[in-house]
Amino acid sequence: MSSLPFSVNRLAAPLVHALVADAAMLRIGVEQHPTGCTMIDAGIDRPGSLEAGRRIAEICMGGAGNVRIGMDSPFAHWPAQVTVGAADPVLACLGSQYAGWSLSGEKFSALGSGPGRALAVKEPLFAELGYHDMADRAVLVLETDKRPPASVVEKVARDCGVPAERVTLILTPTRSPAGIVQIVARVLEVGLHKLHALHFPLERVRDGVGCAPLPPPGRDFVQAMGRTNDAILLGGTVHLLVDGPDDDAADLAARLPSSASADYGRPFADLFAASGYDFFKIDPMLFSPARVIVTAFESGRSFSAGALAPVLLDRSFGVGG
Amino acid sequence: MSSLPFSVNRLAAPLVHALVADAAMLRIGVEQHPTGCTMIDAGIDRPGSLEAGRRIAEICMGGAGNVRIGMDSPFAHWPAQVTVGAADPVLACLGSQYAGWSLSGEKFSALGSGPGRALAVKEPLFAELGYHDMADRAVLVLETDKRPPASVVEKVARDCGVPAERVTLILTPTRSPAGIVQIVARVLEVGLHKLHALHFPLERVRDGVGCAPLPPPGRDFVQAMGRTNDAILLGGTVHLLVDGPDDDAADLAARLPSSASADYGRPFADLFAASGYDFFKIDPMLFSPARVIVTAFESGRSFSAGALAPVLLDRSFGVGG
Amino acid sequence: MSSLPFSVNRLAAPLVHALVADAAMLRIGVEQHPTGCTMIDAGIDRPGSLEAGRRIAEICMGGAGNVRIGMDSPFAHWPAQVTVGAADPVLACLGSQYAGWSLSGEKFSALGSGPGRALAVKEPLFAELGYHDMADRAVLVLETDKRPPASVVEKVARDCGVPAERVTLILTPTRSPAGIVQIVARVLEVGLHKLHALHFPLERVRDGVGCAPLPPPGRDFVQAMGRTNDAILLGGTVHLLVDGPDDDAADLAARLPSSASADYGRPFADLFAASGYDFFKIDPMLFSPARVIVTAFESGRSFSAGALAPVLLDRSFGVGG
Repeated sequence: MSSLPFSVNRLAAPLVHALVADAAMLRIGVEQHPTGCTMIDAGIDRPGSLEAGRRIAEICMGGAGNVRIGMDSPFAHWPAQVTVGAADPVLACLGSQYAGWSLSGEKFSALGSGPGRALAVKEPLFAELGYHDMADRAVLVLETDKRPPASVVEKVARDCGVPAERVTLILTPTRSPAGIVQIVARVLEVGLHKLHALHFPLERVRDGVGCAPLPPPGRDFVQAMGRTNDAILLGGTVHLLVDGPDDDAADLAARLPSSASADYGRPFADLFAASGYDFFKIDPMLFSPARVIVTAFESGRSFSAGALAPVLLDRSFGVGG
Repeated sequence: MSSLPFSVNRLAAPLVHALVADAAMLRIGVEQHPTGCTMIDAGIDRPGSLEAGRRIAEICMGGAGNVRIGMDSPFAHWPAQVTVGAADPVLACLGSQYAGWSLSGEKFSALGSGPGRALAVKEPLFAELGYHDMADRAVLVLETDKRPPASVVEKVARDCGVPAERVTLILTPTRSPAGIVQIVARVLEVGLHKLHALHFPLERVRDGVGCAPLPPPGRDFVQAMGRTNDAILLGGTVHLLVDGPDDDAADLAARLPSSASADYGRPFADLFAASGYDFFKIDPMLFSPARVIVTAFESGRSFSAGALAPVLLDRSFGVGG
Repeated sequence: MSSLPFSVNRLAAPLVHALVADAAMLRIGVEQHPTGCTMIDAGIDRPGSLEAGRRIAEICMGGAGNVRIGMDSPFAHWPAQVTVGAADPVLACLGSQYAGWSLSGEKFSALGSGPGRALAVKEPLFAELGYHDMADRAVLVLETDKRPPASVVEKVARDCGVPAERVTLILTPTRSPAGIVQIVARVLEVGLHKLHALHFPLERVRDGVGCAPLPPPGRDFVQAMGRTNDAILLGGTVHLLVDGPDDDAADLAARLPSSASADYGRPFADLFAASGYDFFKIDPMLFSPARVIVTAFESGRSFSAGALAPVLLDRSFGVGG
């Protein structure tokens, strides 16, 4: 019986319930949308909080991940760090947390992440994962500073196969405290996403843990996006445990870190400006943790590559103001 | 609905319930006082424990904070560290955790901290916070090695507006394991309290996290008080996120750390002795974390000041016995 | 009432229930054995997970301990670390977690650890602890890659005084992710066990915390055992708080770390090979954390001894593959 897949939406449901119950303390807003959908303002009109972001990150991982904010970072100027683990890293990170569902309509555009993706299964990734959630409610996290229009809510409900009354959308602006935490908590997911882009078989991923320093918010969207990316690209670490031959693990380690990309070497916002603010001109292989350790489960051999980049990180985060 | 304030006493109630249920394991005593009040002996006749102190600290923050004991301190000789976060740092720390309620009577004197303060609202601070809790039960933490007399219990019940049967008083001696943890877990509160003393507007505090090393108990009250203070004054870190102009954030950072006080520079017990054991001769601006990072939310600029003081900390904590 | 002992089996029961409920996500198997016993496969035919191991470690501590996996290790090449605390370290570690119950039969042999030991009380240690659990269910953790035969299940049930239907056996192979975590989470227990072997009175242990780096799995049983041992012997830290004279604390600190043994100085697998793979030729005093801090509660003086051994640890764990 234990080999039946778990439901990321059902596991996330009690966490969503607690988020709503603790809304005042978390300084988030809970709104009933005209469609019937519950919308959670985690940083638009309400301030939100780091702790709200931590909980939203766990919801985003379908209740199968754990996220902590500690003061244990290796960076001298940035002691706060986000640490991420998961009971099932592949399903928690790629089957749920990954921001892979493009949602747009009426001047609104955002990427949907979280458990609802596994109900809608609009992405080819789900066929590879062999995962399709069944649940009577859906929750999605949107990195946005605008409330989605009714048409987007209705599309989500329809694609997830649940009434709008059973949809919860959690809205987290990029530069809000909750937004920052929930983005940086993707460090393990970013590592697994690049692993997948490198065509390493997902079924060979046994386990993984990750961490990244908590960045200050950027002054605007571009700087905020730059800093949250850099937290991972210049400051993130993942340790993965994989099945298969040593050569595959060694090859994965060599190719996995952000420094394996030709675009590596400066803060992300600088690179983005240099690319004419065109995301598609940036090497997708840049998006990965700074430092990786890949352990081959059979042989027990570990392969490390990449390195933390404290000087670049300080430049990105802005030491001394 | 989510903008209604939360109740620190109501949020703390399930944590108090769990503390009582787990009393045997936590090695604390649960006593029915003749007044009907529940008294928890967390280190007077019962030994108590570090874990009891961790839970008491979360109760003291009105259920709106989280406290962890890790082995992640930056100090070579003192690996154990207390890390503190809060869903709402200002209300959790100043509205609840701050030891601001002076309770005395019949040779008993202690400062009351914790949720009950927000029912009694005896301190001018609550008008500034605009916070007044409503709840049908009260919990207070007292740093003391004596049980309070009936008159003090009755005063607490009366001022909190609840019958004594619905009052829980948690007693933590300064040098007990639980006492040490619950004091050091005030590192964020101490930072916010000094911020307030510096007249930085509390409504501009967006978020904060903090940590401080876990000190050994002192041999007597003075050394114990010295070491718990030094854990924060020489070893504590806070990272605050604030609203408002950069200049205000920079100015706050410059003035916030303990080293901004003329009394900074030696272990607290030495200073206390030099002051003739007169607390009021010590600069109140000394009471603050050793190292602060203040990030201005709008600009995203960060300002750091102060520094960890490992040599002074070793002198206070006593390396090598 | 609070001085009644707590029941490690009853406190562990809700954690066992959650382990079973979350089996799919934790990638463990839940099987009904013909005897009626519930058997949990945490790494034999099912892969298991680090998070499963973390939860199993908390079960093994009788619900009176807390285990975290963080990325806060002091070792440059091995960032992941297991941190352990306990509400009652002596009962959680020695009364429950210690692998002290030898179970064998029909080509099966394993050491039983966890709450069930305190029902069976087959070991002289329980008389010293003055602890005998009373509960209507039993849970044991077995470090094994085989399912125990019916005769062993029946013996466990009989000795625990519960029907087989109320026995849960959790099976964790040494080199599985769950197995590695639950072994390394013994760092505090290993310290207390050596303290006991040194005849330090257990009733004088007030509190303790510990940590050890998370090792990669070994390629085979011997290397796996070597690495999990070395995580503690070369990489582990404990901080203990004890009652009694300073001289006793100083003497305990001096004798406690692994380096106090003549067998200290190389990876465990090398030593094991040199001993002709005869466990009984290895000095039992080697089994202890690398670094210890012992604080005398009365005087507040701390005594440190031993040291982390990053070079030997790298040799054991295999840096660079």
